Amino acid sequence: MFDAKQLANQGIRNLQPYQAGKPIEELERELGIQGIVKLASNENPLGLSSKVRAALQETLSGLARYPDANGFYLKSKLAKKFGLDSAQLTLGNGSNDVLELVARTFVNAEHEVIFSQHAFVVYPLVTQAIGAKGIAVPAKDYGHDLDTMLAAITDKTRMIFVANPNNPTGTFLSSEALQSFISKVPENVLIILDEAYSEYVAEDERAPSFAWVAEYPNLIVTRTFSKAYGLAGLRAGYAVSHPDIADLMNRGRQPFNMNSLSLRAAEVALDDEDYLQQSVAVNAAGMEQLIAFCESAGLNYIPSHGNFLTIEVGDNAAELYQQLLHEGVIVRPVAGYELPRHLRVSIGLPEENEAFIRAMRKLLG
Amino acid sequence: MFDAKQLANQGIRNLQPYQAGKPIEELERELGIQGIVKLASNENPLGLSSKVRAALQETLSGLARYPDANGFYLKSKLAKKFGLDSAQLTLGNGSNDVLELVARTFVNAEHEVIFSQHAFVVYPLVTQAIGAKGIAVPAKDYGHDLDTMLAAITDKTRMIFVANPNNPTGTFLSSEALQSFISKVPENVLIILDEAYSEYVAEDERAPSFAWVAEYPNLIVTRTFSKAYGLAGLRAGYAVSHPDIADLMNRGRQPFNMNSLSLRAAEVALDDEDYLQQSVAVNAAGMEQLIAFCESAGLNYIPSHGNFLTIEVGDNAAELYQQLLHEGVIVRPVAGYELPRHLRVSIGLPEENEAFIRAMRKLLG
Repeated sequence: MFDAKQLANQGIRNLQPYQAGKPIEELERELGIQGIVKLASNENPLGLSSKVRAALQETLSGLARYPDANGFYLKSKLAKKFGLDSAQLTLGNGSNDVLELVARTFVNAEHEVIFSQHAFVVYPLVTQAIGAKGIAVPAKDYGHDLDTMLAAITDKTRMIFVANPNNPTGTFLSSEALQSFISKVPENVLIILDEAYSEYVAEDERAPSFAWVAEYPNLIVTRTFSKAYGLAGLRAGYAVSHPDIADLMNRGRQPFNMNSLSLRAAEVALDDEDYLQQSVAVNAAGMEQLIAFCESAGLNYIPSHGNFLTIEVGDNAAELYQQLLHEGVIVRPVAGYELPRHLRVSIGLPEENEAFIRAMRKLLG
Repeated sequence: MFDAKQLANQGIRNLQPYQAGKPIEELERELGIQGIVKLASNENPLGLSSKVRAALQETLSGLARYPDANGFYLKSKLAKKFGLDSAQLTLGNGSNDVLELVARTFVNAEHEVIFSQHAFVVYPLVTQAIGAKGIAVPAKDYGHDLDTMLAAITDKTRMIFVANPNNPTGTFLSSEALQSFISKVPENVLIILDEAYSEYVAEDERAPSFAWVAEYPNLIVTRTFSKAYGLAGLRAGYAVSHPDIADLMNRGRQPFNMNSLSLRAAEVALDDEDYLQQSVAVNAAGMEQLIAFCESAGLNYIPSHGNFLTIEVGDNAAELYQQLLHEGVIVRPVAGYELPRHLRVSIGLPEENEAFIRAMRKLLG
């Protein structure tokens, strides 16, 4: 009797795959309704930047050719913009790809990997897929408890994931707290600092994380083009690290992990300062709009530094999620993040936020 | 002293990354010449299908949204076209992604993986990255020696890669030989049948491989959109397998491994029969053109069922490769495939093939 599961690696056998936010088209298929508002995946509500769109049109002709396996132009542009060396960069098919790559390069079944409770689900998922032991450190005020994470380091610890801001809670660690933590982690333990939402943080509050990489060779910083740059559908992310780490990661990287259009789009997006500023401004205004609603409705929320707000809606969060779907509003249940009383709402355009608020007022009565 | 290599997994430390064909832009940068002909990566010389181009234009608007993590429409279309169930499908960021995924799902450091000498380099690469032992079985007439591969199976063998047609030699196994082999492989050893070049094979010679999957649950067939469908730059591939195998692979798959444009492009390409037929016709004509040149020049070549021809140019193959670059023609050295006297030439448009032939005549004197 053929038994595929018996043949699979231990870590994969019981893996529950990542649950993506419900796509608009899927809800349309299921409920047969139109005009759906999706505030479920921390996407950029502005849509694609017009500059990126124009560049992609020009790139379509070359699509029968393979992508540049080394991402020469994108790496050069990133290096120039951020004062880095191209040799410090590892490109990924979204930062998800980079997170997996770090883990597969450095972690094996003998190791422990530390992350925070309520942190991004991909950290435990990649840990489990490799067969390593995940150590989830209880959160403090919904965020990372850095002291307890430090104390959790053992001889077996190979890697620590830190998300700043954190998804799905939006909590944020100050530069001082973060640097103090990093300086205390032994050099043979890698720190993955996931800054997917970094662009939404005020510039004077952002950690000088790329500069830290020169000081702390065990620090790997990851960034994405999926949020403030508006390229979620194209998959573009990268890691900044010590060149030796980048060299090792690039050995295991799929040669064409970023496709021709995502490479080109990321290059152009990086220069499109107007779009980036507009993204940040729309997000700030939408955040105020959602917070004003929460306060008027007497709902607690977790103060957020990202492009989303995680709201405590109560014991019927799962039911409310379903009811919102029927109102044509997709948000994100976060029970899988040990937040069964919360829903995570991405910041949309003003009218999208208003559609959520209207639906909530109706459903909460 | 920080030593990244000491922290890396054994398989990664000495991994030599995949060497992609030299991109046109890279040669332009290096030599400062224009009008380069690239016949190095078995790409489709027709460029993107006009139907795919039109569909991509329409899809650009949605790119700030995440892709559909389940690839609902592409899977439905593949299932319908090939008489499969969507549950048998695993989508990949190119078939490279699927090959890696199979290996990571089922193979660990305790296992052996069998492949043929002169077979696609990704098979030994993914095997090494996992830390498993690769068994390269000597080729017979440049192709797979199936009897010897069968004899190489041990208690530790978890997986066998078979490429048909094979890259970079173009050799082809008949349906009868292949089915006889598959039927003799124990059920606890997975067979990956890589059919990246299958569309170039005459229909009456092609193996009914998707139908075999129902009969042999340990058979996994992979296909790509990078060759005859002309989507190399977009990264789209898939595996057809027993649903239990697909379920396990989908657990470890990156949720957004195929991006929104590659999903859409693959859907449309699958229906674009005109483009596919034109690809095959242009390939057949170009193959005749290259073979006629080889015969007139007295060069041996390996009879090929793919979209490339591997030509025995002699002991100076490496030098000839460099000389061809300076003539503006990029082909592929295959010394890394233990074929130091050969060069692999992709079939281009008639004028591209002619440019190669002209340069060869000049260089061979």
